[in-house]
Amino acid sequence: MPHDIRVVTETELRELVKLDLDLVNVVEQAFVALGRGDVIMPPIMSMELPQLNAEVDAKTAFIPGFDGFALKVSTGFFDNPKRGLPSLGGLMTLLSATDGAVRAVFLDNGFLTDMRTAAAGAVAARHLAPETVTTAGVIGTGLQARLQMRAAHLVRPFERVLVWGRDLEKATLCAADLGRDIGVEAEVCTDPAVLMKRAQLVVTTTPSFTPIVQAGWLHPELHITAMGSDAPDKCELAPEALARADLYVADSAAQVETRGELRTALERGVWPGTPVTELGPLILGAQPGRNSARDTTIADLTGTGAQDTAIATHVFARLGDAGTLIST
Amino acid sequence: MPHDIRVVTETELRELVKLDLDLVNVVEQAFVALGRGDVIMPPIMSMELPQLNAEVDAKTAFIPGFDGFALKVSTGFFDNPKRGLPSLGGLMTLLSATDGAVRAVFLDNGFLTDMRTAAAGAVAARHLAPETVTTAGVIGTGLQARLQMRAAHLVRPFERVLVWGRDLEKATLCAADLGRDIGVEAEVCTDPAVLMKRAQLVVTTTPSFTPIVQAGWLHPELHITAMGSDAPDKCELAPEALARADLYVADSAAQVETRGELRTALERGVWPGTPVTELGPLILGAQPGRNSARDTTIADLTGTGAQDTAIATHVFARLGDAGTLIST
Repeated sequence: MPHDIRVVTETELRELVKLDLDLVNVVEQAFVALGRGDVIMPPIMSMELPQLNAEVDAKTAFIPGFDGFALKVSTGFFDNPKRGLPSLGGLMTLLSATDGAVRAVFLDNGFLTDMRTAAAGAVAARHLAPETVTTAGVIGTGLQARLQMRAAHLVRPFERVLVWGRDLEKATLCAADLGRDIGVEAEVCTDPAVLMKRAQLVVTTTPSFTPIVQAGWLHPELHITAMGSDAPDKCELAPEALARADLYVADSAAQVETRGELRTALERGVWPGTPVTELGPLILGAQPGRNSARDTTIADLTGTGAQDTAIATHVFARLGDAGTLIST
Repeated sequence: MPHDIRVVTETELRELVKLDLDLVNVVEQAFVALGRGDVIMPPIMSMELPQLNAEVDAKTAFIPGFDGFALKVSTGFFDNPKRGLPSLGGLMTLLSATDGAVRAVFLDNGFLTDMRTAAAGAVAARHLAPETVTTAGVIGTGLQARLQMRAAHLVRPFERVLVWGRDLEKATLCAADLGRDIGVEAEVCTDPAVLMKRAQLVVTTTPSFTPIVQAGWLHPELHITAMGSDAPDKCELAPEALARADLYVADSAAQVETRGELRTALERGVWPGTPVTELGPLILGAQPGRNSARDTTIADLTGTGAQDTAIATHVFARLGDAGTLIST
């Protein structure tokens, strides 16, 4: 059956998709649907290619009420930088939720993933961070460090951002960018413990394999979002921190067991085994959230197919004439 | 990093890809690689959408030595025919095996899957059917019935084809098509037992949920390829037939346990539990195949991501100027 398919490049997508409250709200809808339990989301398909130092993941999710659903391919070819190429890539396909037909192909090279990941950080901050955040902090100095702080500022308009990274030069650059882009005071911290102490909202954005944030650094009136760990063996928080917090929340309980911060905590036997609170039910009020301003909370985000479906549908609705129309 | 991506429609692909020995040989290479054990092929990602009477599958596989690897999305929206739309659809993405970049998007609506599935039937027939096949038979009257017989004729140039289907009119049409397209005698059989008795090579191509081929119909000098069952609950052969044959061969031992004919046999306890021979090692001579002309053999094909990678790479190599070039 002939139909038209829109093929949209990364450059075109960057014109269309901005990190704003609209996007945060769309991604929040994905979590709400997950919370209702009516999302169909199979486990991530993951292909490790050790001989290439590479990994390929596919994610999908069907959200009732959304016109379409995404199937996303993410690539990580970690030797690419040696050849002057970016490590991460991939594309999203949007299929019709009515008849399964391909509606659009977003050749985004991971851009939409970056955006929906940042938006999820804002959703976590909106529902978990103390009402008043004057100082935010970010661990890591890459693209997500920038995006996560911009997204967090949409829901918690902090006055000051602190940046820590292993590389002082990169941290300095990141702080300069954040100060300019968000229009807040920006400082580099040379000690992550100091950053933690001063902030009410911290986002960890590193691909670390060993904990950076120590359990002893937790303090009242703090929310931490750990979004760097998205694969087995990655870990940003000391595993003891999870149980020590007043509340530990996952984007997907099933995923954090194998890909998130919980994996290490379970392995070390430092998680009491209580069922993990999920962000969706928490937003819906079906599971308890922050009790008081003084609580310490942690959100563990591994990235869900539901977020991909949310952003892909959002983008499709605002495509206008963008992209190349392919008639099949 | 800007690069060019080729987007190719079904119409363009149909011009490029023919069911010939070249294609059979390419798909055979995929099985050889599977047989060598060096293919990386994660389990199929499957999303059931019962409220829509639909299913979405994703498959991928990395074959060392191939320039690219495919990630395929297959859709089955089984209420589509009520709206005048085909049930099956989907697309294939070809990614570079060097840097993971998207090289091509094949908007094939399942056409390449049809072709690689037929080619796999020919690979099975080449390595398992008796050397001399004068009469071939096909159970089912759809597209794969036609393609499987055309593919089988490439490797076993039979003189006569028998067709059985539940619907006599469709069977008559299918036989007429086959007679004309292959240039052989074509007959409709009203009794599948008679078809089985007269043929040395039978391919079952139905989406049946109950066995059509009974174990008592097996006879010497026969090869059966069952390619219809590709999902849990489907079943074309009586489960007792598997152990009764001299040899039962799977495209993927892991897949036939959950999606192929073996599933029912295991469930009913009529499979002796011996390790399942796979087509790849058999082609390589690492596992025994047919011992004599009088053997009865069965091949169970569920469809592998390795076949998708094989056909996608094959198509990409012969693209020429076909398709739309998208510069990212």
